[in-house]
Amino acid sequence: MTSMPTDRANQDALAAIAAARPLLVAVGRAGDVIPGFAAHDLLHAGPPLAADDARCGALRGAIAGALLLEGVTDDPQRAAALGEAAPWRLRSADSCSALGTFGGVISASSAVFVVENATTGVRTFSAINEGRGAALRYGSTAPESLARMRWLDGEFASTLGAALRERGPIEIFPLVEQALQMGDDGHSRQKAASALFMGALAPALAMTASDAQVAARALAFLAENDFFFLPIGMAAAKGAMRAAEGTAGASLVTAIAFNGARCGIRIAGDARWHLAALPPIEGAYFRGREARDAGPVIGDSEIMETLGLGACAMAGAPALARYVGGSVAQANAFTDQMYAVTLGEHPRFRIPALDGRGTPFGIDARKVVATGIAPVFNTGIAHREPGVGQIGAGYGRVPLECFRSALAALG
Amino acid sequence: MTSMPTDRANQDALAAIAAARPLLVAVGRAGDVIPGFAAHDLLHAGPPLAADDARCGALRGAIAGALLLEGVTDDPQRAAALGEAAPWRLRSADSCSALGTFGGVISASSAVFVVENATTGVRTFSAINEGRGAALRYGSTAPESLARMRWLDGEFASTLGAALRERGPIEIFPLVEQALQMGDDGHSRQKAASALFMGALAPALAMTASDAQVAARALAFLAENDFFFLPIGMAAAKGAMRAAEGTAGASLVTAIAFNGARCGIRIAGDARWHLAALPPIEGAYFRGREARDAGPVIGDSEIMETLGLGACAMAGAPALARYVGGSVAQANAFTDQMYAVTLGEHPRFRIPALDGRGTPFGIDARKVVATGIAPVFNTGIAHREPGVGQIGAGYGRVPLECFRSALAALG
Repeated sequence: MTSMPTDRANQDALAAIAAARPLLVAVGRAGDVIPGFAAHDLLHAGPPLAADDARCGALRGAIAGALLLEGVTDDPQRAAALGEAAPWRLRSADSCSALGTFGGVISASSAVFVVENATTGVRTFSAINEGRGAALRYGSTAPESLARMRWLDGEFASTLGAALRERGPIEIFPLVEQALQMGDDGHSRQKAASALFMGALAPALAMTASDAQVAARALAFLAENDFFFLPIGMAAAKGAMRAAEGTAGASLVTAIAFNGARCGIRIAGDARWHLAALPPIEGAYFRGREARDAGPVIGDSEIMETLGLGACAMAGAPALARYVGGSVAQANAFTDQMYAVTLGEHPRFRIPALDGRGTPFGIDARKVVATGIAPVFNTGIAHREPGVGQIGAGYGRVPLECFRSALAALG
Repeated sequence: MTSMPTDRANQDALAAIAAARPLLVAVGRAGDVIPGFAAHDLLHAGPPLAADDARCGALRGAIAGALLLEGVTDDPQRAAALGEAAPWRLRSADSCSALGTFGGVISASSAVFVVENATTGVRTFSAINEGRGAALRYGSTAPESLARMRWLDGEFASTLGAALRERGPIEIFPLVEQALQMGDDGHSRQKAASALFMGALAPALAMTASDAQVAARALAFLAENDFFFLPIGMAAAKGAMRAAEGTAGASLVTAIAFNGARCGIRIAGDARWHLAALPPIEGAYFRGREARDAGPVIGDSEIMETLGLGACAMAGAPALARYVGGSVAQANAFTDQMYAVTLGEHPRFRIPALDGRGTPFGIDARKVVATGIAPVFNTGIAHREPGVGQIGAGYGRVPLECFRSALAALG
């Protein structure tokens, strides 16, 4: 398990991630701001889908919704069929440094957060979170879901963008640091970070909104959406991970993601995805829902675990532990297990319940294989049918197979 | 230690407190909205000051500041002297259902929160928190402290009041419930509650502010002041405690307060204050400060402990435990000790780190005397000289003498 070149490479990779200073610099239209984005691209979460991979319900609905929003047709059935064929091209968001939340698809007119790692200058992108309930990222093409998306991509995004220009870039990790002192795990619980973000932007938003009603609508959405911060955190994490990518010999994990058909990870020392079948999810279902209602896992948000958040920080998020049907003891056990498979402790993200100990930081594929501890990740659980929305929350374990494959590739 | 009439009385008192539903209904001028408030009243924190009780530095500065703000004179020295004599009258805020934070004095033109317990209709009052640093409630009469008070009592209070009229009353305990899931103790840490309060009011504030600059200034103050919620919580707690007052035979503690000269408690079964010398404070000092810089304890905020918050909820506030120089183990020990001297567990205020157990609720003077465990309270530590401000934070223990005296009065 010891390999000096890999040890050194991992320390370099870890240092590059720790040095990241991601800033939210703008809100823009995907087609305008994402380098390499082509007019008919549809960016999906997770590793690239193979031609014969099944498209899960949420993804199919999201593709249809994207075409409806792009104004290609008014007919949801026709939109779904059109989206499967040229000129439309389904691509992994990862291929252009973007991320998808759950089934959410980014198309040309999607409003996206533009996050820049000030240390490297690299930019990353993620779509605005729509909130809970029937959302396009869960595949809903209901009129109210599309109307909300139009408002988000239009009035709301331009209001947010203007506020950000007035205020100047928002540094993201200080908000995450503080949110961890307030019971967030940085992944499945974003209540504190979302509230802190609102506080950081609200004065400039009130100042720059085109009128008081516009300001009030934007602030009401920010106040009610306690997942709002998630995609901002994801883009920040991606920018940090990008700084470690290409570190020859490093077994540090830079991405964990799901495309609704497969699970994939990447390591810093190898550009390829290492795939396995989707893992099962344990958790708690909302009233009236059960395991057989659940759709497959999809989404890029497990990038948070690679940064030392999510399941890594579970010991600091006891309210989340209850929400997913677990106990404080289980939350502590998850964090303990993540200490066993990580390279260090995060220098800034700290767990108040552990007297301020840094979170488990830098999942090491070698340690995973050596210990046989499959890393834990937090996740929401969505209904298998498009558009129903979230039906629970829980956790899963990234299959060991992914890590064995990555190590083999490292040689 | 068993006395059936007292047991029953205590259960009645506890039920009355648990049934409270405090609403923030308005922001108004003290002289207009506090029943029984006379034009030259100056309301101070804690039990009534005796003629020969020393006035601590913070209180002396706050009295001078009140007269400067009332426009009686422009000369701080003269203001201090004038405030000691007729027609000015120093009264305990408690005598008109109001509360003082630290040395803060409420005079006729002070803006106050009006909180109504919807269950009983009783109204309680507290002044707006000025934030950290050189503040009038720490006795600062510096020009910037007075300018901030004028803005708070004027533009800010009327902006807040208008927003509240637009939105309608804000129910206070749901915010506290959620804040406890976010690392607040409900007393010395108010970061989450303040952020949640801002979220609840910001949309209406943007809508009703006289212009965008006024809205932006108000929102910036709300976002920066992470103690903002404290006086709102105090007035809510007071409204709950008032519902238990006058329960014959009850040994449940309804107030813990300090006036800078003495410590006092009251119990539900007896209207009198039971006094003792001020207890020492343990804690952590900000850089460059030490114990000999500390002024005496003053303030009504320990009403939060009587409601099951503050030191009672310390096990749920690990970030606060570190802030006051303690450990998570010590925080857990404080909460454990409070379980030993309380009548029950709060039905709504829950500690996530204890798997959602209700906070220790209803300090019982009998249990305190029987166990010899002096109840813990959280507090800020201010400099002994007027106007320097907060120099640390910590905790103290309410002297057993107060509880013995209360039990003796109960007979």
